Amino acid sequence: MKTHEPPETLPGVQAGAVWSAPEVPALSEPALAATLRRRIERKTVPAGALGWLATLAEQLGLILGTSEPRLREPQLLVFAADHGIAARGVSAYPSDVTGQMVGNFLAGGAAVSVLARQHGIAQTVVDCGVRRDFAPAPGLVIRKLGPGTQDCSMGPAMTPAQCRQALANGAELLRTRPGNALLLGEMGIGNTSAASLLVARLGGIDLADVTGAGTGLDAAGIARKTAILREALAANAEAVEPLDALAALGGFEIATMVGSVLQAASERRVIVVDGFIASSAVLVASRVAPPVLQRCVFAHRSDERGHALLLRLLGVAPLLDLGLRVGEGSGAALAWPVLESACRILNEMASFESAGVSDRE
Amino acid sequence: MKTHEPPETLPGVQAGAVWSAPEVPALSEPALAATLRRRIERKTVPAGALGWLATLAEQLGLILGTSEPRLREPQLLVFAADHGIAARGVSAYPSDVTGQMVGNFLAGGAAVSVLARQHGIAQTVVDCGVRRDFAPAPGLVIRKLGPGTQDCSMGPAMTPAQCRQALANGAELLRTRPGNALLLGEMGIGNTSAASLLVARLGGIDLADVTGAGTGLDAAGIARKTAILREALAANAEAVEPLDALAALGGFEIATMVGSVLQAASERRVIVVDGFIASSAVLVASRVAPPVLQRCVFAHRSDERGHALLLRLLGVAPLLDLGLRVGEGSGAALAWPVLESACRILNEMASFESAGVSDRE
Repeated sequence: MKTHEPPETLPGVQAGAVWSAPEVPALSEPALAATLRRRIERKTVPAGALGWLATLAEQLGLILGTSEPRLREPQLLVFAADHGIAARGVSAYPSDVTGQMVGNFLAGGAAVSVLARQHGIAQTVVDCGVRRDFAPAPGLVIRKLGPGTQDCSMGPAMTPAQCRQALANGAELLRTRPGNALLLGEMGIGNTSAASLLVARLGGIDLADVTGAGTGLDAAGIARKTAILREALAANAEAVEPLDALAALGGFEIATMVGSVLQAASERRVIVVDGFIASSAVLVASRVAPPVLQRCVFAHRSDERGHALLLRLLGVAPLLDLGLRVGEGSGAALAWPVLESACRILNEMASFESAGVSDRE
Repeated sequence: MKTHEPPETLPGVQAGAVWSAPEVPALSEPALAATLRRRIERKTVPAGALGWLATLAEQLGLILGTSEPRLREPQLLVFAADHGIAARGVSAYPSDVTGQMVGNFLAGGAAVSVLARQHGIAQTVVDCGVRRDFAPAPGLVIRKLGPGTQDCSMGPAMTPAQCRQALANGAELLRTRPGNALLLGEMGIGNTSAASLLVARLGGIDLADVTGAGTGLDAAGIARKTAILREALAANAEAVEPLDALAALGGFEIATMVGSVLQAASERRVIVVDGFIASSAVLVASRVAPPVLQRCVFAHRSDERGHALLLRLLGVAPLLDLGLRVGEGSGAALAWPVLESACRILNEMASFESAGVSDRE
């Protein structure tokens, strides 16, 4: 990303807005890791029998910097914005749906709202740039960068200043929030397109391998979408650095999410990653600061084409694989109790010694 | 199973105990199925995006006979017993561990106890035939058929009368319990051997393909275990009918579980199946009454060798795959919130109409 820009007066962009990537040091505490592993090994189950619960318990301990990790006040942020490229027909649904779904989140009727309520997760919707304007409402935060991005098949989706502001917004949103876990959610008609573009550009993967049905395109629709996205890559051929690519090909909600992810990582919060779009934001963030990935729990494998490939690119494996492709953060909310289980297993389970159970002969 | 037996006076067996398989009619309510599917289709997500949550919501509605299924007072039964064949060294742990683990369940320190507490699931331990005797305790039910089964490598594990009594015990246990969901748990050093034998005999599968590490045998241990189990199959060559095989090759906890599964199915309770041993009980029950499977939700794929094959034999797919091989019902308890999520999605999510969200163009 270029560092010197002419002054801009864009809606939502503060003159001279400054963002610098926060420090995200590698987690490297061998003594803590050893303590965590020893605690797990003494639990009253056969060696290795806890599978991923053990892996997850160790990871959560390392992120939170304690051998007795406890998750507190989880925050689900639903980053919402519209996309200029949606006007070209890359989605099965009209852009109006983004704003309508914001209303659905606030009324508690969306899938993610139901799941967040089930698990006591605080849901906050962030208007990062929805075409429609909203009246103030509880659970809604306005960090609008415009009424949707520009059509990236014609040029950059946003200006560098808008991207910087989005990153700064994402960081600031996190700083003021309680708890030690961030769950990533999003809403934006057209945003699988932005995610596919980011993965193709930053992952060096052919677009056709990471372009899918989104909200429900058929094969012909996917072929059309792929052709339009190729135009977008061509129109932004020089945007190859992570944050340049984010500005040129991303969306306001994705850029704000990247800011929140980097901030959360720097604060050693647990980051629960949802599906394809949230993972694309983590891809960008991890290219800025690779140790971000140590703080991420990948909640599920989405059915959206490209997500499985993106997870492999990141070298990670998800907790759940239930064929969902809802987005919104629904996969993250669905997986949340498994993270809770991992902590409880570590903190509440007896050891062979405390329970008076014979270990193997 | 033969129907006429000489009178027996075995501990825990009531003279003339009668058990007859309860009726488990096929669930066939096309109108209800259509209603459930229509409700799911109108939810504010793209068509098909709810994946398994939709499949599960429909199944739960069909089991409970309502388009608004609600899970109430889930009951986790941990069926515990010892196995004569354990004396031959088929397990990495000594038989004493079965009784010690019962103490651990009652103290709330076992993996399943922690997970059941997390999710508000009532845990009851059933002593079906642990070698050690227990003082009465809250959360413990004694339905003891003896101090462990006979060594099935020498002949039948139990008598037909004991097996009948176990089935009757399992049915009676269920009848007196509240709620509309049963989660299956078990504890018994040696019980992967019993499960492997049942799957080999009833599934017509070679023992080597369904005999695994259990609590942690190495390759040589597994080879020894397989050879001993081949003796057991030979010693009980005539036990080919489901309940004959159960008596000859099973365990007291497995037989009692089969009784509970059949009773739960006849009462249209939701049955949440744990790992390899619980699935082997469901295999037996489904051979007695195939529609049992319609009432079963398979919680997870255990890492125990043979479970993946058994799931394929049953033609079912599990919700989770987290590399656990704890048993106890831990996988069932871990998956429980996903069942809750499916019900809530059905009952609490808005429709396109109620939320004023545009459906696809």
